[in-house]
Amino acid sequence: MKVSIIGTTGYGGVELLRILHSHPEFDIHSIHSTKEEVAISDEYPHLYGIIDKKMSSIDADKIADESDLVFFATPSGVSSSLVDQFKGKDIKVIDLSGDLRLKNTSDYLKWYKKTPANEAIVDEAVYGLSEWNKEQVKAANWVANPGCYPTATLLGLAPVVKEGLIDPRSIIVDAKSGTSGAGRAASRATLYAEVNENFKIYKVNEHQHIPEIEQQLMVWNSEIQPITFSTHLLPLTRGIMATMYVQLLADWETERVIDLYQSYYENEPFVRVRPQGYFPSIKDVSSSNYCDIGLHVDKRTNRLTIVSVIDNLMKGAAGQAVQNANIMFGLESHSGLKFMPLYP
Amino acid sequence: MKVSIIGTTGYGGVELLRILHSHPEFDIHSIHSTKEEVAISDEYPHLYGIIDKKMSSIDADKIADESDLVFFATPSGVSSSLVDQFKGKDIKVIDLSGDLRLKNTSDYLKWYKKTPANEAIVDEAVYGLSEWNKEQVKAANWVANPGCYPTATLLGLAPVVKEGLIDPRSIIVDAKSGTSGAGRAASRATLYAEVNENFKIYKVNEHQHIPEIEQQLMVWNSEIQPITFSTHLLPLTRGIMATMYVQLLADWETERVIDLYQSYYENEPFVRVRPQGYFPSIKDVSSSNYCDIGLHVDKRTNRLTIVSVIDNLMKGAAGQAVQNANIMFGLESHSGLKFMPLYP
Amino acid sequence: MKVSIIGTTGYGGVELLRILHSHPEFDIHSIHSTKEEVAISDEYPHLYGIIDKKMSSIDADKIADESDLVFFATPSGVSSSLVDQFKGKDIKVIDLSGDLRLKNTSDYLKWYKKTPANEAIVDEAVYGLSEWNKEQVKAANWVANPGCYPTATLLGLAPVVKEGLIDPRSIIVDAKSGTSGAGRAASRATLYAEVNENFKIYKVNEHQHIPEIEQQLMVWNSEIQPITFSTHLLPLTRGIMATMYVQLLADWETERVIDLYQSYYENEPFVRVRPQGYFPSIKDVSSSNYCDIGLHVDKRTNRLTIVSVIDNLMKGAAGQAVQNANIMFGLESHSGLKFMPLYP
Amino acid sequence: MKVSIIGTTGYGGVELLRILHSHPEFDIHSIHSTKEEVAISDEYPHLYGIIDKKMSSIDADKIADESDLVFFATPSGVSSSLVDQFKGKDIKVIDLSGDLRLKNTSDYLKWYKKTPANEAIVDEAVYGLSEWNKEQVKAANWVANPGCYPTATLLGLAPVVKEGLIDPRSIIVDAKSGTSGAGRAASRATLYAEVNENFKIYKVNEHQHIPEIEQQLMVWNSEIQPITFSTHLLPLTRGIMATMYVQLLADWETERVIDLYQSYYENEPFVRVRPQGYFPSIKDVSSSNYCDIGLHVDKRTNRLTIVSVIDNLMKGAAGQAVQNANIMFGLESHSGLKFMPLYP
Repeated sequence: MKVSIIGTTGYGGVELLRILHSHPEFDIHSIHSTKEEVAISDEYPHLYGIIDKKMSSIDADKIADESDLVFFATPSGVSSSLVDQFKGKDIKVIDLSGDLRLKNTSDYLKWYKKTPANEAIVDEAVYGLSEWNKEQVKAANWVANPGCYPTATLLGLAPVVKEGLIDPRSIIVDAKSGTSGAGRAASRATLYAEVNENFKIYKVNEHQHIPEIEQQLMVWNSEIQPITFSTHLLPLTRGIMATMYVQLLADWETERVIDLYQSYYENEPFVRVRPQGYFPSIKDVSSSNYCDIGLHVDKRTNRLTIVSVIDNLMKGAAGQAVQNANIMFGLESHSGLKFMPLYP
Repeated sequence: MKVSIIGTTGYGGVELLRILHSHPEFDIHSIHSTKEEVAISDEYPHLYGIIDKKMSSIDADKIADESDLVFFATPSGVSSSLVDQFKGKDIKVIDLSGDLRLKNTSDYLKWYKKTPANEAIVDEAVYGLSEWNKEQVKAANWVANPGCYPTATLLGLAPVVKEGLIDPRSIIVDAKSGTSGAGRAASRATLYAEVNENFKIYKVNEHQHIPEIEQQLMVWNSEIQPITFSTHLLPLTRGIMATMYVQLLADWETERVIDLYQSYYENEPFVRVRPQGYFPSIKDVSSSNYCDIGLHVDKRTNRLTIVSVIDNLMKGAAGQAVQNANIMFGLESHSGLKFMPLYP
Repeated sequence: MKVSIIGTTGYGGVELLRILHSHPEFDIHSIHSTKEEVAISDEYPHLYGIIDKKMSSIDADKIADESDLVFFATPSGVSSSLVDQFKGKDIKVIDLSGDLRLKNTSDYLKWYKKTPANEAIVDEAVYGLSEWNKEQVKAANWVANPGCYPTATLLGLAPVVKEGLIDPRSIIVDAKSGTSGAGRAASRATLYAEVNENFKIYKVNEHQHIPEIEQQLMVWNSEIQPITFSTHLLPLTRGIMATMYVQLLADWETERVIDLYQSYYENEPFVRVRPQGYFPSIKDVSSSNYCDIGLHVDKRTNRLTIVSVIDNLMKGAAGQAVQNANIMFGLESHSGLKFMPLYP
Repeated sequence: MKVSIIGTTGYGGVELLRILHSHPEFDIHSIHSTKEEVAISDEYPHLYGIIDKKMSSIDADKIADESDLVFFATPSGVSSSLVDQFKGKDIKVIDLSGDLRLKNTSDYLKWYKKTPANEAIVDEAVYGLSEWNKEQVKAANWVANPGCYPTATLLGLAPVVKEGLIDPRSIIVDAKSGTSGAGRAASRATLYAEVNENFKIYKVNEHQHIPEIEQQLMVWNSEIQPITFSTHLLPLTRGIMATMYVQLLADWETERVIDLYQSYYENEPFVRVRPQGYFPSIKDVSSSNYCDIGLHVDKRTNRLTIVSVIDNLMKGAAGQAVQNANIMFGLESHSGLKFMPLYP
């Protein structure tokens, strides 16, 4: 299968290259960026001698003619304009931005403060949370690849939300991300000297991933009320941890909750529900496509603490995008994705 | 005033040296450790040519004779044994460990899993949360210096807890600390290669600072119920952030909450309540004695998010210890503590 | 082919697992450590669900019976004792420690300050600098895998030393390494709080890799005189840079030097000689088996600056060990080693 | 004394504020930047409640009327334009940029690739290497504050260069700096995700500090030939280490070299020549004005290794600037500069 990538110069784009370069079924046919005619190894010298393709301009007709699948590794606000160019073309699309995720375009307007994408495509696009929407992804032409925070959060909340085990007003998510999530554009806020030896909270109760999370939670359980969601910037490059707090409606032991989670995820190659007493850390999944989950019920408060970790560029972006591509083309979902976590 | 330090080779001890070396009223009379006869600059070469004192063994009589005040910069379990040696001596004591903090010694046994200190001294010891217990500290002979997490947490929660503005069952504290809090002893878990590019949660619902926080909250408001308290290890050296979530009982605007906090802390030199829209980060207080607080009410959930940051070695340990010493000896509370945050 | 690993709990051992787990020809048959009966995923939780083998004790007969190859991922001083156990057994051995590298055992005694390994085996062992000793490695039963610093240094110096282009007394190597090179044992010097925001020089002119480098340089060019070699500890986990300074005997342009290097390394998959004007950084090779080299002649001094970078756990240890294993068993030297550098 | 600062929003400017805020003799009268009417605490929130001055535009007449001294904490190319405005005014000037350092303006043109400053002022400006040019600084109206790399390098080389103990063609400087030296402007190259877990060499043999170093070395010893000088970017915020290699002309023991250095610097409060066997690391001087020096003669090569560390924002910029200000106004050179190194 031939694939194209638009937006190759960002961190999500270059992570797609890392995965696809050794993928047994997908062949990187073309890469695109506004920096046409520049070799990708000039932009990313670590690729020297490995991938020497040049970037070319975005010609939707040509891409659709020559490739079976295109990844939009472009930022929100850019993907929406690409949608118009690829609409009606004979090619499958996986969009890594937030532009196709929110079914209610007024939510998009409110949280992203940008013009929404074509509404028909937004309607058609399938939300690519691979473990939960496999059947729809398989049949999809347009996939909205989930955000990094929503992936960690939703995989961690799904079982108790679906089962209706928690007070629907009680969801609090304290999320932390490494700086690669902020992208590769020059910026003062993510300079090394600003981030190092620092830790900050940002977009308190205002993060654009809030409606994405709530939309999916309500698909699973319509009782769910608005969540509290905080995001923090970690002094590290890759990784997200979401620490979540929910109020259990009945008395459940930690072990029983873990059993529930393990039964939900037992056939999923990338979700590792950890045994009682172990809580995953970011290095447990670094540079891999795993999402690891740890669980604990505090008997004093009957509150459940859920810890969910991913690599934001892998399971939180490029890894899950390739997982969705695998599903769309009938491959095993972990095809080309068996990267072992990097340790130390 | 002459002061002595026991446990000078730990990070808390060396931070006391940094502060006291330039303090206008306190004179470092003697330093003590099990490494007797070793110059402190052999242990800490950055002190070469600045402080060349030798460490000596712990002779309680001699220390009490020669000094006006002694700091126990020793770990929990060690301070309790020092208590017996200094009991009845004519010297004031500030203990930086957890050994004198919990009034209920069975709590100490349960959470610390060590033998509690002499009960009469524990009873007598004043909890040195400087901003709130000034009068008792002034009169005290024994001060239990607060833990790092409790300091950030309690300063952040005090106004709403005292005023009874929140659901007493709703307190959730998601706390994050740098690695200097784990001390200077050789350990695999805090090796650079283990901590760098990593972030982990630890002691979920089991941290020994939980009873300390709850004890003080109940002093302020007897309705308070058990809290949820999580601790995480940040890949940085100095700093703590506590992100706290509480349910407001009535509708309050963010601005009104900020006004309340500012009125409580307006005369406190080290607590900076930040204006609406700004949330402090760890670098805002790094290497200083400040505790910065940011506040936000989410109208969607009527939940208040409280962000509190400190430098764990300063306001969370040595800085607050010196602040208490200032109060005990009738000095201004910020005497010798006017360190500006280090940026970048 | 079946392989065994002794010393699996160290960083070199776990990196061997990462590589060998996805190797197309080698099968991890058994892993060994003093922690017998412990699952490797208990020691390294990131392996949970990926590798669940238990470690077993070291039974040389059993290992030699069942495996075709054994890696000693043990520290210097431990490997030498394993040598005696495996001597005469029908199994190939690759030793990652320094114990088999120095042909002159009195050098070993002087620089390592430990008892040398069995002299006959030391004599027999082939120095596994893969690019340069391919033929001997192919025929070897015992391979002394090169040290991390020597690998970066020797690959960078080889062409000009072999060609006799430099003043043989002029070699100065200023080397810098990440902390994973210091291993996983608990230690104060490599605590996060000691290494972070720090940079230090160590073992000035006393590093045990000096005789290893000089031994090989003199194989290439008997005129070579003692070198100046400094090692520094970088605040990062993986990676080595050796910045080298040599005096050219004749006037050479940078471009001509680069041509020379490229002709020497043109068939080597893991050595990338960079074009004029580009100097590789550590991230260019991170988590891969590449050694990247940058070159510049300063016309003002006629001195050549050589920059050589590797990942110390890959090309500097486990990666090169597997490269040697490939060669020993007649596979392509990059078999199972095509890891793309991890960026960012 | 009243002082003004131009260029307060950079890292050098804010470090001047940190020092001057607690200086016993200098009073920050005004701060200037292109961001007029903005409070400095809006730009640097860590200053909230500590310094609330607003920045104003640059009115040379007003500044000269009201202040006794002005610091140009502006980049090279900007200072040169300020020079014209302040020429002939009744105010002392300390320029932290490179614009007044090179006596030969064609060198400036060649290495900085910018228009040189007014030649008369360049001629008049005194090179403010505090320890060596005290008398000239005392009498100066214009001080060219040394660069960060030159400060570490020159203090480390001075004694052997002045004494003529080394081969004048043999000087090799391998220098490493933290990222704060690259400034606070948004840039891709110094993003956290680019610098973290990375280490790179840059401007090989082309750094603009080369002519500054050589100019001063030749003042001390006219025989000195062009040096080899490499600069590397460390993944840390503050600090420089210069590792220097020089060929001794005669056989000297390490101890004798140390004695020489100690006799040169014995009355200097900020230069600490370390005893035999100890080599300073960056944390030994972090956030202080010290320059620490370690020395070792390798008997095998008769080469001297010199290690010199400073905090680039203190002794390498703002600290030395204040040290020069102290000297210019007849104060003790360490007045207001007794910051203890921050550890850990």
